[in-house]
Amino acid sequence: MTSNDIKEEFTVADDLYEKGIKKIQELTQSGDDDPTGFMDIGDGFKDIAPDLSKYVVEFAFGEIYSRPGLDNKQKVLTTMTALVAQGKPQIGMHVKTGLSVGLTPEEIVGCIVHCIPYVGFPSVLNALRVTQEVFKEEGVTVKTPEE
Amino acid sequence: MTSNDIKEEFTVADDLYEKGIKKIQELTQSGDDDPTGFMDIGDGFKDIAPDLSKYVVEFAFGEIYSRPGLDNKQKVLTTMTALVAQGKPQIGMHVKTGLSVGLTPEEIVGCIVHCIPYVGFPSVLNALRVTQEVFKEEGVTVKTPEE
Amino acid sequence: MTSNDIKEEFTVADDLYEKGIKKIQELTQSGDDDPTGFMDIGDGFKDIAPDLSKYVVEFAFGEIYSRPGLDNKQKVLTTMTALVAQGKPQIGMHVKTGLSVGLTPEEIVGCIVHCIPYVGFPSVLNALRVTQEVFKEEGVTVKTPEE
Amino acid sequence: MTSNDIKEEFTVADDLYEKGIKKIQELTQSGDDDPTGFMDIGDGFKDIAPDLSKYVVEFAFGEIYSRPGLDNKQKVLTTMTALVAQGKPQIGMHVKTGLSVGLTPEEIVGCIVHCIPYVGFPSVLNALRVTQEVFKEEGVTVKTPEE
Amino acid sequence: MTSNDIKEEFTVADDLYEKGIKKIQELTQSGDDDPTGFMDIGDGFKDIAPDLSKYVVEFAFGEIYSRPGLDNKQKVLTTMTALVAQGKPQIGMHVKTGLSVGLTPEEIVGCIVHCIPYVGFPSVLNALRVTQEVFKEEGVTVKTPEE
Amino acid sequence: MTSNDIKEEFTVADDLYEKGIKKIQELTQSGDDDPTGFMDIGDGFKDIAPDLSKYVVEFAFGEIYSRPGLDNKQKVLTTMTALVAQGKPQIGMHVKTGLSVGLTPEEIVGCIVHCIPYVGFPSVLNALRVTQEVFKEEGVTVKTPEE
Repeated sequence: MTSNDIKEEFTVADDLYEKGIKKIQELTQSGDDDPTGFMDIGDGFKDIAPDLSKYVVEFAFGEIYSRPGLDNKQKVLTTMTALVAQGKPQIGMHVKTGLSVGLTPEEIVGCIVHCIPYVGFPSVLNALRVTQEVFKEEGVTVKTPEE
Repeated sequence: MTSNDIKEEFTVADDLYEKGIKKIQELTQSGDDDPTGFMDIGDGFKDIAPDLSKYVVEFAFGEIYSRPGLDNKQKVLTTMTALVAQGKPQIGMHVKTGLSVGLTPEEIVGCIVHCIPYVGFPSVLNALRVTQEVFKEEGVTVKTPEE
Repeated sequence: MTSNDIKEEFTVADDLYEKGIKKIQELTQSGDDDPTGFMDIGDGFKDIAPDLSKYVVEFAFGEIYSRPGLDNKQKVLTTMTALVAQGKPQIGMHVKTGLSVGLTPEEIVGCIVHCIPYVGFPSVLNALRVTQEVFKEEGVTVKTPEE
Repeated sequence: MTSNDIKEEFTVADDLYEKGIKKIQELTQSGDDDPTGFMDIGDGFKDIAPDLSKYVVEFAFGEIYSRPGLDNKQKVLTTMTALVAQGKPQIGMHVKTGLSVGLTPEEIVGCIVHCIPYVGFPSVLNALRVTQEVFKEEGVTVKTPEE
Repeated sequence: MTSNDIKEEFTVADDLYEKGIKKIQELTQSGDDDPTGFMDIGDGFKDIAPDLSKYVVEFAFGEIYSRPGLDNKQKVLTTMTALVAQGKPQIGMHVKTGLSVGLTPEEIVGCIVHCIPYVGFPSVLNALRVTQEVFKEEGVTVKTPEE
Repeated sequence: MTSNDIKEEFTVADDLYEKGIKKIQELTQSGDDDPTGFMDIGDGFKDIAPDLSKYVVEFAFGEIYSRPGLDNKQKVLTTMTALVAQGKPQIGMHVKTGLSVGLTPEEIVGCIVHCIPYVGFPSVLNALRVTQEVFKEEGVTVKTPEE
């Protein structure tokens, strides 16, 4: 094993952070000047928990979001549902991610409305409120089925 | 308006139950002899809540599962996530539905594992345990990525 | 079967929306000019989920709230408890419904306080805060037991 | 203040446990030979948390269940809903209490089914399963509405 | 038994409220002029639930917080975790209590961050936001590990 | 930079798994022949999610449990509380960990009982049941305060 081989192998490990950042760029379509884009990776907590953004980037994005099995659209669908089910305000950011990876507005609303029989109306209504605001900000309109 | 017109219009309304049953057949690939297949529509509660299966069939399947916006695979992904997030035992039945609508075992596991950063390890481990049993029963194997 | 019989039967089915609206009117004591009164049926989402208010009206009110078994006061007690247990902001609207169907302020507070041994103090305190605001808006006072 | 006055006043305080036990007897219709009846007051934990049953009896029953505001039927409705919303197995014991305080089987089922729009189907189906078992044990049948 | 014996015994019972208040003073380092300090004991609800603060003081503080087994630091760690896990806004008040009983800022952040594998990132990020504000108000800084 | 330096640096990265395993050994007092001891790291899922145990070991134990801020006893207290608050069956395994890191049985019970005002009685009673079983298996007795 040459020094170079070792270096390469080392790079793999070292790159978990890099891998996470690349995944975020892919998800948010953000450029190298602002690599995490609209994604909150917790770097507002540098003063009290400076290691937090490392966990978000390396574990959540470098490992879990980089896992094979699901495509990005499916990953964001899953994320949104987990947030609706728990009533978390982060739903707004992930609606944005949904649009960014190519989920249609109809799919995003479809996902949230599909939760009604499983989590009840209140959680769904609260999530739709945030979604509606994001859609307004993003200038997105929903093609509504004629009924 | 002829009697026939009225009858037709009436049928539309009457058919919400029928529509739900058809959706369940589509989801479970069940035949007309056993139209609800492995799906628990709550008809074990005929003695205490005889209207319950009507709500499950008409509302959950006739309305929500029949909504445009998501395809069946996306609907089952959403369902599974909502159940993982809440720790509900119904996850097993919906893993079965996932296989039935064509989600690969990798997608099903991918969905559950993707929940880790949003709901934590315990909920995911508990859901995987049930999934593993369903896979065994169904003779399903997961193509695992070499690492 | 005459055309009229069919029409009548059809009306039953067709009227699920109408039945839901009537139930809401009964619950909110709202007139025909503003049939849903203070009840949020989700029609603020016409742009992104135009079918949502149909589900709220038909399923939640036309089916579930129209079910025999409980009277209106018991239905609102149950609703309020479900919202307290989940920490949902909709508690305020349903405190209003409680007053409208004739629950006394003492019963409303009694219901929320009764949840303490089952859900803990924080959820109860947060729900009481919203209740207190609704009571102020509605000019309602609580007869407090001498201790 | 005579010694008797003090004794009386003291008795009030001392009686919080007694008051709780009396409330439990009232709720479970249990006699003095088995004062807590079918109610689990946590005295199976005497070896690891000997003070636990004191908290259950004094706080939950002596204070909260003894509060004016709601009658016993309303208190049990509230309790059952809180347990359904959280998916707790204690629902069975409180279905029993419901029957004991005079809730009809229709009211008990009505309460649980009423939760569907607020907590979703899975929690309700799971609670109905336990309820069905209790009804069987107690020889209770539900008068079902003709549909 | 003399009148004095009875009085003493009576005092024990009567003192549950007093005992709770003393515990709050100990936890919040508040003086006799403002015995409950920054702790919200629910006395903002005197108009609608005048007995509520009695339950908070007597049961939560007089009984549970006064229990042997854990020291105050451990009690506040446990409290904070329960609030993080449920996403309750009361986390801020109990971060303050943590500082007051001598938990270091590193322990407080450590506790919240430790929840990630058990409850997921969103709950933790939301709790850290409130913690950060409390730390700012209190002029507290976190010694961050070099990485 | 010599090949050795690189190797050492590489080892740091590579050792995240090793670091996690060492942490588990420390927590469970397990020997090198059975390094993960009684801790479930998810390696029962090798057939369906072979990467899962890597996440548990590396992220949960290599990162979060290895974080400075809290000592092991505090970490297990936090873990137990998060599990009690969510009603997760994993509480049993972590009660075992608590004993292993030196929490007294009184502290373990104290932690669970302390949750009552924050999560209610049912969650606490259910967790105590599991704890009681673990204590029996481990031959542990609780020194109970005389009351």
